[in-house]
Amino acid sequence: MSVAQQTDLRAYCLDLARRAAAAAAELACVGGAARNEFLNTGAKLLRQRTAELLAANEQDLAAAPGFELTDAQVDRLRLTPKTIESMAVGLEEVAAQADPIGEVIESSVRPNGLEITKVRVPLGVVFFIYESRPNVTADAAAICVKSGNAVILRGGKEAAHSNAAMVAILAEAADAAGLPSDAVQLVETTDRAAVGHLLALDQYITVAIPRGGESLIRRVAEEAKMPVIKHFTGNCHVYVDAAADLAMAERITINAKCQRMGVCNAAESLLVHRRVADEFLPRVGKSLADHGVELRADENARQRLLGAVEASEDDYAAEFLGPILSIKVVDSLDEAIDHINRYGSRHTDAIVTSDEAAARRFAARVDSSAVMVNASTRFNDGGQFGLGAEIGISTDKLHARGPCGVKELTSYKYVVFGAGQVRE
Amino acid sequence: MSVAQQTDLRAYCLDLARRAAAAAAELACVGGAARNEFLNTGAKLLRQRTAELLAANEQDLAAAPGFELTDAQVDRLRLTPKTIESMAVGLEEVAAQADPIGEVIESSVRPNGLEITKVRVPLGVVFFIYESRPNVTADAAAICVKSGNAVILRGGKEAAHSNAAMVAILAEAADAAGLPSDAVQLVETTDRAAVGHLLALDQYITVAIPRGGESLIRRVAEEAKMPVIKHFTGNCHVYVDAAADLAMAERITINAKCQRMGVCNAAESLLVHRRVADEFLPRVGKSLADHGVELRADENARQRLLGAVEASEDDYAAEFLGPILSIKVVDSLDEAIDHINRYGSRHTDAIVTSDEAAARRFAARVDSSAVMVNASTRFNDGGQFGLGAEIGISTDKLHARGPCGVKELTSYKYVVFGAGQVRE
Repeated sequence: MSVAQQTDLRAYCLDLARRAAAAAAELACVGGAARNEFLNTGAKLLRQRTAELLAANEQDLAAAPGFELTDAQVDRLRLTPKTIESMAVGLEEVAAQADPIGEVIESSVRPNGLEITKVRVPLGVVFFIYESRPNVTADAAAICVKSGNAVILRGGKEAAHSNAAMVAILAEAADAAGLPSDAVQLVETTDRAAVGHLLALDQYITVAIPRGGESLIRRVAEEAKMPVIKHFTGNCHVYVDAAADLAMAERITINAKCQRMGVCNAAESLLVHRRVADEFLPRVGKSLADHGVELRADENARQRLLGAVEASEDDYAAEFLGPILSIKVVDSLDEAIDHINRYGSRHTDAIVTSDEAAARRFAARVDSSAVMVNASTRFNDGGQFGLGAEIGISTDKLHARGPCGVKELTSYKYVVFGAGQVRE
Repeated sequence: MSVAQQTDLRAYCLDLARRAAAAAAELACVGGAARNEFLNTGAKLLRQRTAELLAANEQDLAAAPGFELTDAQVDRLRLTPKTIESMAVGLEEVAAQADPIGEVIESSVRPNGLEITKVRVPLGVVFFIYESRPNVTADAAAICVKSGNAVILRGGKEAAHSNAAMVAILAEAADAAGLPSDAVQLVETTDRAAVGHLLALDQYITVAIPRGGESLIRRVAEEAKMPVIKHFTGNCHVYVDAAADLAMAERITINAKCQRMGVCNAAESLLVHRRVADEFLPRVGKSLADHGVELRADENARQRLLGAVEASEDDYAAEFLGPILSIKVVDSLDEAIDHINRYGSRHTDAIVTSDEAAARRFAARVDSSAVMVNASTRFNDGGQFGLGAEIGISTDKLHARGPCGVKELTSYKYVVFGAGQVRE
């Protein structure tokens, strides 16, 4: 790239960020009705212009062989009238959610008569960096604008045409609803250096949210000058306690591992208390094998499992995102907890037990965004928790942890009403 | 420094961070009663061992000339029986606060019977980096442990002996209360490289909180691999609206500027609506001059002020932390808002007005941690807001904004109770 091109790219990114910040300042004063009108108009336009979206998507599909995508990736890239309808419904569902902005979170009147209110406000500008699936574009734009933020979207290069068509429609919806059309912007270059330029602009961009593979997230976390909400994939555990109902334990293990293997809240590791290992492992081993899952186990577990291979240290730390499960027999609840805190990724971990004290100890000591007691790890999800649409599942402990919906894209300010009070 | 020394320092920091993480894991399961016992025992021991603390402080005072401190800094460094008593009372006050840990922030039962609870938990390990005043050591340790966190304290080198004596007493209190004695640790080297080593240990340290000058905060924000809660000093404004009660405006301006000049919530800039400038500026100018404040004003304001000098762009962006005030006449409420969002530091800004619509617009559009309507900027403070002790005032928008007390040092996790539910 020439110096002139580099300068152009930097100027382009600066302009994008400045426009977003100006849009965010306007959005902070826009009522919920206008933000909902944007969402409902966006849904209407997506439906009306299905043909245009499909045509843009055809261009991406035609170019797909150049990106060496897997069949599954091509499948996720493909838009159909059905997926477009479901994006439109998604926008309407976000519109139907309660407005988070302006909510008085807490208030009090101090002895000197000052009225202290803590009011929910937008974050400002969200820089969202994600991969492939174009339906994420509509979802992310919807929850960012619902929560009063301007958003800069950086989608995968494979979906460039689909994303551009969608963002053009959303900008039109913003305009029709009286919102700044820069409320939703797309980074319209596939040059990777653009991400670096934008990550340096912390005076305009409030937060960066990467969603995708671990290397993307690490790169963003390292380069960003603004805070990052990280969404690492999950190394999730199911622990079957000595006091477990073993039929329930089998159902939960199979669901957590097999219901959908490539997602962050799928189980990657099974821990079994020694006292139930003889009875539980052979039966769950057979079920898992029937689902085509490869078992990697420690010596104690392998004695009770047919066809399991030896697990390495790396296996216990791995996020397989596919048909492999690591297995270990533990001597105690605390050994299970320590194993999870050591090898896990602080995402989602489940205990199956009828011993309430064991459940409480597990819930208190396992340091993860969600702890499931007698339920599948697969429930750690904004929709399943009743939070509505989500932009991802945070594995951070600051700001937002677990599913990030509209509320997690907000901040607050204190607004204090006085009658001339001064400090003594 | 030799390679061996560097290796030693790195190993020392790693050990410190690992101990803190182990202590944090224990603390996450310690009840509020034991944490309060630590605080109350700490208060008792501080009183009992006043002589020991004063002797350690004498060593710091004797070494003070070597650090070229100002008289004010030496004054802040000095411990007296009275300041030690007030630290002890501070610990008891934190003990008396409600326990934030274990609080169920939200809960719901889903249609499938899952009970979703969002439970407040500690952050983990707090690395607190601060300057000079030794009383901050006790305050910070108190609110970190109250909120279930382990803390690594890095105080100013000027206060090294006082801090070491205090932390020894606090570790003893932790031990007596059945808490891990590593709950409160001090970085026992004045080598600046130690801070860099610790800021790289994000696998053990959850958050870094720097409090001090802007260069310290920038350095920490740049080097830290973990999230940082930043506490920049404030460029705070008082805006006197066209509809202001001018006697109130004068009282608030004088209080915000002069009640205590060297603090982050003191006013640094005064904006006056053109319609009241003729009447307001001469009177407030005289009061400010009586308080020894130098006035730096734009042309319009200087016409109405005796002895004001010309304000530069830099003056409007400056945090003087002393007897200087920048002044500007504005044509409208929106000009005032735009000026504040451009030159301010998003800390605390006040409007004086009897026009409710103007107050609402100012509160909505000024992007600061606290907006005061008819009250002094000096009220942006954890104690004044009724939040109890604070570790600082955040100028960030993520996680914590404004005064950071015990609640701001917590995170949450989802604990989900089921009866064998699996996802369809």
